[in-house]
Amino acid sequence: MPAHFTEQHSAETVNGRISPESSPRLRQIMAALVNHLHALVKEVQLTPEEWETAIGFLTRTGQLCSDRRQEFILLSDTLGVSMLVDAINHRRPGNATENTVFGPFHVAGAPELPMGSRISRDGKGESCLFTGRVLDLDGRPIAGAVLDVWSDNADGFYDVQQPGVQPDWNNRGRFTTGPDGHYSFIGIKPVSYPIPDDGPVGQMLAALGRHPWRPAHMHFLVSAPGFDRLTTHVFVAGDTYLDSDAVFGVKTSLIADFKRNATADAEWLCQFDFVLNPA
Amino acid sequence: MPAHFTEQHSAETVNGRISPESSPRLRQIMAALVNHLHALVKEVQLTPEEWETAIGFLTRTGQLCSDRRQEFILLSDTLGVSMLVDAINHRRPGNATENTVFGPFHVAGAPELPMGSRISRDGKGESCLFTGRVLDLDGRPIAGAVLDVWSDNADGFYDVQQPGVQPDWNNRGRFTTGPDGHYSFIGIKPVSYPIPDDGPVGQMLAALGRHPWRPAHMHFLVSAPGFDRLTTHVFVAGDTYLDSDAVFGVKTSLIADFKRNATADAEWLCQFDFVLNPA
Repeated sequence: MPAHFTEQHSAETVNGRISPESSPRLRQIMAALVNHLHALVKEVQLTPEEWETAIGFLTRTGQLCSDRRQEFILLSDTLGVSMLVDAINHRRPGNATENTVFGPFHVAGAPELPMGSRISRDGKGESCLFTGRVLDLDGRPIAGAVLDVWSDNADGFYDVQQPGVQPDWNNRGRFTTGPDGHYSFIGIKPVSYPIPDDGPVGQMLAALGRHPWRPAHMHFLVSAPGFDRLTTHVFVAGDTYLDSDAVFGVKTSLIADFKRNATADAEWLCQFDFVLNPA
Repeated sequence: MPAHFTEQHSAETVNGRISPESSPRLRQIMAALVNHLHALVKEVQLTPEEWETAIGFLTRTGQLCSDRRQEFILLSDTLGVSMLVDAINHRRPGNATENTVFGPFHVAGAPELPMGSRISRDGKGESCLFTGRVLDLDGRPIAGAVLDVWSDNADGFYDVQQPGVQPDWNNRGRFTTGPDGHYSFIGIKPVSYPIPDDGPVGQMLAALGRHPWRPAHMHFLVSAPGFDRLTTHVFVAGDTYLDSDAVFGVKTSLIADFKRNATADAEWLCQFDFVLNPA
C-alpha cells in the first residue's frame, strides 16, 4: 500500500501503520474499524459540514458523561449496538431463555427476601405476583438459583433515579430457589418510561422521528452454579412500545401475559419460567 | 424486517425505526452508519469487555474536549478520516495542486504583507525563501490570488500554542499576487513536531505502535476569485516522518526540495507553484 495518502487506498494506508508488534486482537479490531469507517465515508460521500456535525455530536455526547449519566452507552443502546454485543456473546440453544440488555439501573446488594415477599415499598402502582420456575434445558428444576429482580415504580422511575423520593430498595429484591426451582414475589405491574432524551441522543432520536420510550418490563438477573448467568427482562404483553423499544431490548420470547389475578393478594399475575444454559 | 431484535437482522430492525419523514440525507447517513457499526461488531465478534473499553475511550475523548483542545478531531485525523473527507470533497484534475488537512492552527486575519517580507518574528530557526507562482490549469498566472501562510517555529510550536512566549503572528502572513502570479516571502524551514499525545488518542497511537509526529510543512491557503480555494501544505523533502505522518496529511505531489540558498538573504530556498482549479 502507498505510504502517502490516496483516496483509493485510504484505509490500507492507515492500517499499514499499525505495528505488527501490537496486540493481535487490538490490531484486528482497529483494522476492521478503520475499514468500516472509511467505507462509510466513501459510501455516503460525507461532506466537510457533515463531518463537523458528527464531530460536534460526539464531543457533546462525551461532555455530557459523568458519574451520573452515560450518554455514550445510551447512544450504543439506541443504535442497537448494545443489544448486538449482548446477542453475539449469549447465543443459546433454542429453549434456553434469551438475554437482553442489562441497563443502567441495577444495584448490587439488593435485600435477600423469602419467596412471596413484596418488593414494592412505596405503595404505588398495581400489585403483581411474579411466579414461575428456574429450570435446566431438560426441564428439571434448579435449586439454589438466585433471582435478582428490579423494576421502575408506577411513576416510571427506578429508585436510584429518585434518591430521597423513593424508599431505598424500592422494587428490588433477591430470591433463592429451593429444590422445586420455584420463585414468587410481589412487585408492581411495571410501566413504560422514556430514556433520558434531553441530550445529544434525544436530539438524534428526534431528528430520526423516533420516540425515547421503553416498553414496561421487570428485570431478572438469574444465576446458578454451573449455569450461564441470565440477564433478561420480562415484558408486559400489550404494551404500546413493544414494537418500538428505544433500545431494541425486546425479544419475542420475553413477552409475558400479565393476567388479572382474582385469587391472591396482588392485582395481576405474571407467570414466567427461566431456562438456564449450562456454563 | 422483524420489529423485535434478532442477531441476524439487527441493523435492519434499527434502520426500520427511522421515520420516512426524517431528512433523506440524515436517513441515508444514519442507515449506512448503523449497517457498518453492526457489520463491524459481527465481523470482530466484539466482547462485552471490548465494548466497555470502547465506551470508556469515547467518553474520555469527549471529556477532554474544550475550547482549547479537540480530541475527537485528533481521533478523526489519526484514523485518516479527516484526510478522506478532504479528499472526497476536493477531487481535482491531474495538474491542479492537491488539498490536504486544514489543521487546528490557522488564525484568520494574519498581517497583509508585501512580497518578499519576513514572517518569522522570533529570530529562531533556519531562514527560508518561499517562492513560486499561482497558476490556472493552463499555466497562466493568476493575479489577485491571496496566499495565507503559517508554520510552526523552530521549536515545533505554532504561535497560538505559546501565547506570551512567541511574538504575535509569528510565522504567519498574507500575500496577494500581481499580474505575474508570483509570490515570495521569508519564513523558516519548518520542523517536524508531535501532535498532542497525552490523551486517549496518544494512548491509542501507543497501543498501535504508532508515533505522534508530523513531518515538517508550511501551510498555504490559496484563494482567488473564480477558483476553488486550495488548502494545502508544502512538505520538506527528506523529513524523517514523511512516510509516517500521524495524521496522513502527506501527498506525494506536495513534497518539495528545500535547497541551500547561496544568493539571497535566507539560508534555504523552497520553490513551489500552486495550480488552482476553476470554481
